[in-house]
Amino acid sequence: MEKDDPQELESKFNSKTKAIILNTPHNPLGKVYNKEELQVISDLCIKYDTLCISDEVYEWLVYSGNKHLKIATFPGMWERTITIGSAGKTFSVTGWKLGWSIGPNHLIKHLQTVQQNTIYTCATPLQEALAQAFWIDIKRMDDPECYFNSLPKELEVKRDRMVRLLESVGLKPIVPDGGYFIIADVSLLDPDLSDMKNNEPYDYKFVKWMTKHKKLSAIPVSAFCNSETKSQFEKFVRFCFIKKDSTLDAAEEIIKAWSVQKS
Amino acid sequence: MEKDDPQELESKFNSKTKAIILNTPHNPLGKVYNKEELQVISDLCIKYDTLCISDEVYEWLVYSGNKHLKIATFPGMWERTITIGSAGKTFSVTGWKLGWSIGPNHLIKHLQTVQQNTIYTCATPLQEALAQAFWIDIKRMDDPECYFNSLPKELEVKRDRMVRLLESVGLKPIVPDGGYFIIADVSLLDPDLSDMKNNEPYDYKFVKWMTKHKKLSAIPVSAFCNSETKSQFEKFVRFCFIKKDSTLDAAEEIIKAWSVQKS
Ligand SMILES: Cc1ncc(COP(=O)(O)O)c(C=O)c1O
Ligand SMILES: Cc1ncc(COP(=O)(O)O)c(C=O)c1O
Repeated sequence: MEKDDPQELESKFNSKTKAIILNTPHNPLGKVYNKEELQVISDLCIKYDTLCISDEVYEWLVYSGNKHLKIATFPGMWERTITIGSAGKTFSVTGWKLGWSIGPNHLIKHLQTVQQNTIYTCATPLQEALAQAFWIDIKRMDDPECYFNSLPKELEVKRDRMVRLLESVGLKPIVPDGGYFIIADVSLLDPDLSDMKNNEPYDYKFVKWMTKHKKLSAIPVSAFCNSETKSQFEKFVRFCFIKKDSTLDAAEEIIKAWSVQKS
Repeated sequence: MEKDDPQELESKFNSKTKAIILNTPHNPLGKVYNKEELQVISDLCIKYDTLCISDEVYEWLVYSGNKHLKIATFPGMWERTITIGSAGKTFSVTGWKLGWSIGPNHLIKHLQTVQQNTIYTCATPLQEALAQAFWIDIKRMDDPECYFNSLPKELEVKRDRMVRLLESVGLKPIVPDGGYFIIADVSLLDPDLSDMKNNEPYDYKFVKWMTKHKKLSAIPVSAFCNSETKSQFEKFVRFCFIKKDSTLDAAEEIIKAWSVQKS
């Protein structure tokens, strides 16, 4: 996947930069930052004395040829990094909204204050389930049955299937290094969006049209963008491939029929 | 429990009043609003065309001589009322943060928008557990074993015990009609608070001192007040009596020893 441009990145830092948010594996891009890229980021954090909030909720969902690295393990980074994980993403229970933050005491203590005054408490049955899940899998980290190993293997097959499907109808999906989303420029499919409301970005109209007329859903990528970058991404939508095979079968049928109909 | 003054209440309404929040049974006061009081409130809501957000999370925790009434059942109120309930309070699973809102579609649809953009989703295992709990108890509403009947009965004994205990050391607890809290003016206990930080209301200092020196905890009532009413309540603390008997035994020992030591 494309590399960050170190100079462009540095141009975003200045003496007032208090913290940056890093997200690897990235949603929606599917990018997994490699060692060199994380070194650039960590050098900048140290140079500008900046905290790093590292969102690593997809840390276990990394595909062949890529490796998840924690920026907190880079020299000088532990004391300035908060690493965030998610039960929902780690154990496929999205919606539980249960996670964890790892960092030095001088940072975590402030998160505890925020937690005490916002989230306040988590449901104990969910916490217990998560603790049990960790106990089971931590004892079998080298076992292929360990969920940390089996889930990415299972998902890589689904990713490859989805990539082939999108390519088979002429799209150019951006093959994700990690996570469970694929983005693709869908403008080639060029549906007639004239019955959609006109005051929305192309991708919003596209996914609403597709959900209604094709019974296939996706997320508009420009929803993740600020006003500066929105226009670069409005031809892209995000497909999710963490789905039952029967659901992927149905998606395949829909997309293939659509493509035949067009040609 | 003391009645609302209708004139004082009306003085708080004007043509700009969009909504009021009602809470019955009340936390921390323990007040359960009776029919006449709710009629006054409902007349005011209608007169000033005001919505009523009715927090009834303690609806099942009502003690002998009191009855919980839903203001949404008063004539003209359904269409302007959102009634709020809580799994945590109904089934003694505080911390699950799972609840429900009941109201007419034209109000609930806006709550759905808020929900979709804030809470977004609830953990399904908790929702399933709540649904099962309702199924079990709705089928046995007349049975003394039904949780809606057994819980307030069990708690009334604990309330009475806590009232007697506080009275036995000379305090004047305000006997709650409902809920599981008792408030009492504790200034009579008059501990030496000179080692506590001075920039806090009396009740804050009192509960911190008591937690530290007596290993007994309570909540400062002025935490519930705005700046106008804070000073009226800063001699009060809120005790919680939804506790195991062994915990109440321990509280009794602590309070009795304290009182002997003072006299
Ligand atoms: C990058 C990223 N971070 C955090 C979250 C939040 O995850 P959770 O709701 O499991 O805490 C998500 C969920 O979509 C995500 O994609
Ligand atoms: C009056 C009142 N309303 C609402 C709540 C929130 O309840 P829950 O967290 O179960 O939704 C509480 C909890 O203390 C309460 O006392």
